[in-house]
Amino acid sequence: MASVEIIGVGMIPFGKHQERTLVDMGAEAAFLGLKDAGVKPAQVDACFFANAFGGRLFGDITIGQNVFWDVGINRVPVINVENACTSGSTAFYLAYNSIAAGQAELALVVGAEKLYVPELGLLNSGETEWETQLGQVVSTGFAMRAIRHMMEFGTTIEQLAQVAVKNRRHGQLNPLAQFREPVTVEDVLASTMIVKPFTRLQCCPNADGAAAVVLSSPKVARTLTRRVRVNAAVLCSGSYESPQDLTHWETDYRAAKLAYEKAGIGPEDLDLVECHDPFTIAEILHCEALGLCAVGEGGKLVEENQTMLGGRIPINVSGGLLSRGHPLGATGVAQIFEIVTHLRKEAGARQVERAKVGLAHCMGGDKAMDTKSCTIAILSV
Amino acid sequence: MASVEIIGVGMIPFGKHQERTLVDMGAEAAFLGLKDAGVKPAQVDACFFANAFGGRLFGDITIGQNVFWDVGINRVPVINVENACTSGSTAFYLAYNSIAAGQAELALVVGAEKLYVPELGLLNSGETEWETQLGQVVSTGFAMRAIRHMMEFGTTIEQLAQVAVKNRRHGQLNPLAQFREPVTVEDVLASTMIVKPFTRLQCCPNADGAAAVVLSSPKVARTLTRRVRVNAAVLCSGSYESPQDLTHWETDYRAAKLAYEKAGIGPEDLDLVECHDPFTIAEILHCEALGLCAVGEGGKLVEENQTMLGGRIPINVSGGLLSRGHPLGATGVAQIFEIVTHLRKEAGARQVERAKVGLAHCMGGDKAMDTKSCTIAILSV
Repeated sequence: MASVEIIGVGMIPFGKHQERTLVDMGAEAAFLGLKDAGVKPAQVDACFFANAFGGRLFGDITIGQNVFWDVGINRVPVINVENACTSGSTAFYLAYNSIAAGQAELALVVGAEKLYVPELGLLNSGETEWETQLGQVVSTGFAMRAIRHMMEFGTTIEQLAQVAVKNRRHGQLNPLAQFREPVTVEDVLASTMIVKPFTRLQCCPNADGAAAVVLSSPKVARTLTRRVRVNAAVLCSGSYESPQDLTHWETDYRAAKLAYEKAGIGPEDLDLVECHDPFTIAEILHCEALGLCAVGEGGKLVEENQTMLGGRIPINVSGGLLSRGHPLGATGVAQIFEIVTHLRKEAGARQVERAKVGLAHCMGGDKAMDTKSCTIAILSV
Repeated sequence: MASVEIIGVGMIPFGKHQERTLVDMGAEAAFLGLKDAGVKPAQVDACFFANAFGGRLFGDITIGQNVFWDVGINRVPVINVENACTSGSTAFYLAYNSIAAGQAELALVVGAEKLYVPELGLLNSGETEWETQLGQVVSTGFAMRAIRHMMEFGTTIEQLAQVAVKNRRHGQLNPLAQFREPVTVEDVLASTMIVKPFTRLQCCPNADGAAAVVLSSPKVARTLTRRVRVNAAVLCSGSYESPQDLTHWETDYRAAKLAYEKAGIGPEDLDLVECHDPFTIAEILHCEALGLCAVGEGGKLVEENQTMLGGRIPINVSGGLLSRGHPLGATGVAQIFEIVTHLRKEAGARQVERAKVGLAHCMGGDKAMDTKSCTIAILSV
């Protein structure tokens, strides 16, 4: 397997872009990524586009073809990928594979999503699935996990709220984040109850946005500066060992083990982590799966400010899904954008000092009980 | 690049499956494919699922995860792919790549689509695209090409109709085809006018269906019988050199050149071809691009019965999209199913004698004027 480097990233601000289309947003991110990499559209030899809800909301297909066409790329393979919340990171995984396998020299990944539309409603597994028909939508699945974690490990609602407080504080420092106003634990707990124990500020917002990453073989990258190495990119799919074990995503643990093995890097080597925090409990569970603390101690980790910028292992310095926003197809790509920005020492006010190794983690899939996908990328300079 | 073999195929009858879901149909095809290959679900180490309209019509996401879960496959990467009509063949291309690159030993590809729903309407590029808003839907794009081909090369409406007649005659012999009643040129021309020059019988029907292919490295395949070799699998994306040239899909020509080069096989070596015939003109244009006749002579080729079963180069012996049916995500996979069935001498009444080399061609993308994808796979025994 050839080694793979990231030579450019691009991202538009996440938030409301009601006047823009998926293609328009995706093309701007692609343009920014290519410009950052200093490469021409004609140099790109494989393209991957990620989106989850363009079909459901707008009836769109082959969006990637239109995005890449708009920035002047044609005649190369274009793959449109959907993997729920891991759509963007799955596209990154495929691009990584294409270069590692020697099938492409320079790959462009774009993720885009447009969720600020009244048609969205509650995210679910599809109207024809029985989980949806029984009321098992995404938020209720995470809520069950939160309540179980509180029962098993004594995690408190204040610790859950602290995840939202921390990620908002981080988001304040990120000019591309959707929400940049600070909140307190009291604000979080006093906001509207969505599904017990989650108040509104513990749930990620709907967002529009797009992000891009340019990957290359060392052959291409050699001529460029500001290179970031991809030490591992893995994708695992579910299921649980035991569906009753609501505080242990088996896929998450397996992906972490695989990524650390492939990279020859352990959790103790990480300088920063972007992880999938659509609801506060998710970040706590993922911290445990990634080995950043002992199982059951994710609540304590955030309470002690260890995951705050300046702490032992800053998590979601971008603001995470809770504050940067969560346009599904773009999220996994935006996580890579964030890690790369820190490794290149370009993160400004939110820069993690001496950042040399970062990890981006995403989890997707829409059912509470069975199939999930987990992606992890480990990057370094 | 390691060589890649096909060790199993599966397909459910195409047609109306109004009582079934995408997951249900996909899982049955997956089961049939695995059974045909004689492998267990636990042996599969990469999964690819193709679908185009599950999001638009049912709000579905991560369908593949649910399909593979239902046949007992979990813990492996699952990729959901969309590439319009080439969704299924793009999934096949990715699976081929994963094995050729040594990243998987045994990959399962499933394509499924459910179009027999009143919500479908006319296929278009998405409601937000300006082509759609101007009335440029799929059928009108192909109609412009047909009229242009008639003007430039003297192709007749009878020759166009003959494509439908031939593919219906083939479909009669295929127990899995959607339409199995023969039609005459007179029937075709007398059916309802859809968009000039296409009558209803010159347009592929809406269909529900699913198909599966199991690919493996020679390491796995060595233990199995009935192996088919993949000599090439390519994916090219559009555009035209000149958008005014309506009778020449540049992407088509480029994909053909690339596939023949990679396989070391030319059009003269082919024993049968499955190609993308959503409208009669498409088969004529693709014959020319694939080098099965001179440019402009596609109409004559079908008129002379050269592409009929028993003729010089049988095309769409399955019945093609016009007769087997066109459930988008399943189509590219069903084409592979057809070629493999002939190469293994299991095609019964429609068997192409002494078939040793076959080609599957698909084209996708939804705009008349710009971005398209073309996939070609060349298989042999």
